[in-house]
Amino acid sequence: MCTGDRKEVLIKLEKAVLSANNRVAAANRSFFRAHRILALNLLSGPGSGKTSILCRTIEILKDRVPVAVIEGDQETVFDAERIRASGVRAVQINTAEGCHLEAESVRKAIEHLHPEERSILFIENVGNLVCPAAFDLGEDAKVIVLSVTEGEDKPLKYPYMFAAGSLLLLNKTDLLPHLDFDYEQCKTYARRINPSIEVIGMSAFTGNGFNRWICWLETRLKQFQNE
Amino acid sequence: MCTGDRKEVLIKLEKAVLSANNRVAAANRSFFRAHRILALNLLSGPGSGKTSILCRTIEILKDRVPVAVIEGDQETVFDAERIRASGVRAVQINTAEGCHLEAESVRKAIEHLHPEERSILFIENVGNLVCPAAFDLGEDAKVIVLSVTEGEDKPLKYPYMFAAGSLLLLNKTDLLPHLDFDYEQCKTYARRINPSIEVIGMSAFTGNGFNRWICWLETRLKQFQNE
Repeated sequence: MCTGDRKEVLIKLEKAVLSANNRVAAANRSFFRAHRILALNLLSGPGSGKTSILCRTIEILKDRVPVAVIEGDQETVFDAERIRASGVRAVQINTAEGCHLEAESVRKAIEHLHPEERSILFIENVGNLVCPAAFDLGEDAKVIVLSVTEGEDKPLKYPYMFAAGSLLLLNKTDLLPHLDFDYEQCKTYARRINPSIEVIGMSAFTGNGFNRWICWLETRLKQFQNE
Repeated sequence: MCTGDRKEVLIKLEKAVLSANNRVAAANRSFFRAHRILALNLLSGPGSGKTSILCRTIEILKDRVPVAVIEGDQETVFDAERIRASGVRAVQINTAEGCHLEAESVRKAIEHLHPEERSILFIENVGNLVCPAAFDLGEDAKVIVLSVTEGEDKPLKYPYMFAAGSLLLLNKTDLLPHLDFDYEQCKTYARRINPSIEVIGMSAFTGNGFNRWICWLETRLKQFQNE
């Protein structure tokens, strides 16, 4: 097979994979809607603090609304164990060589989790600012986490991810005094890529900014459940 | 096409893509060897400090040995501009939706760069701890950068990347006093995945650890040129 042929077949297959994924994502979305489950897809590069954000969020939310978590990682069950220690149900998906979660693995995870009616389901994706942007899981919204240690230029460098998000959490703001990070510039870059993206600065370490994030969650939950 | 069929065709095509990549990588490797060019593939998640490390490295090395740089990003030419400002030639490859550099794009970049005989060529890959691990570019070694802000568990969570590396640079050590990062544990995890990986702690901000890194580079260059 010459390179041209292979490329064409590959593009066709990629489209087929995405369209098969979209069919399962649509079914997941119907399930979430029928059961009034607000599903949020959490996306970031490695080590931006998604799991720490989730642990603190669960601590605040768990007496107000049922919460469940699907954890995605290439290997290890560390994150699901951390989440379970915070008192809610969690399922770990290991993708091995895979670089993103797919709708089908989320569908299977839901069968194990049995998330409650009118709950919030957090889906923590594999730490990767590139590939997971293309895969719909049936979520209500994509929430992107960027650590301020990663530099303010990331929205321009990884535009597909930032274009897909509804909310950007700028985490680790407790480290700002020790960094050369231009917070306003980062927001400007994010909105250049995605004018409607909301931005909340926060620190999962100190809890700073969590009021706004919890408020965003509760507003989204109310809107979703009243739709 | 049913899912099973598609999966089988996909796996075959992935193997074909990797094997086509490997053929070009082998040609790149022959070129590097013939011209005594030490090519290093720099890999990390987003914002770990690869470009800052390169800028400081070039500052130290540029009067001792010719240096050239290939920069990989989904979008923007920021990094190539930063590198050029430090006084060496650089070519930017934008991968758009692509999540990694391939040997063919490196081959084309070499045609533009014309790296000098007996030089060092740094290839800064797309910020992604997953996909670039599978793609040989013809480099002499893979150098992985992990920022200490990303957490000590990353070698276990992204084992394919850490298994592929010859050297791990633990960057941003100037932030250690403000972090809950277990440095020794991170080294232990990295060596559990890859017993032969070397580990150097450094800060591209303060310059700490650069003596060891420059020494590693000069030793590797000498070995490579005398082979």
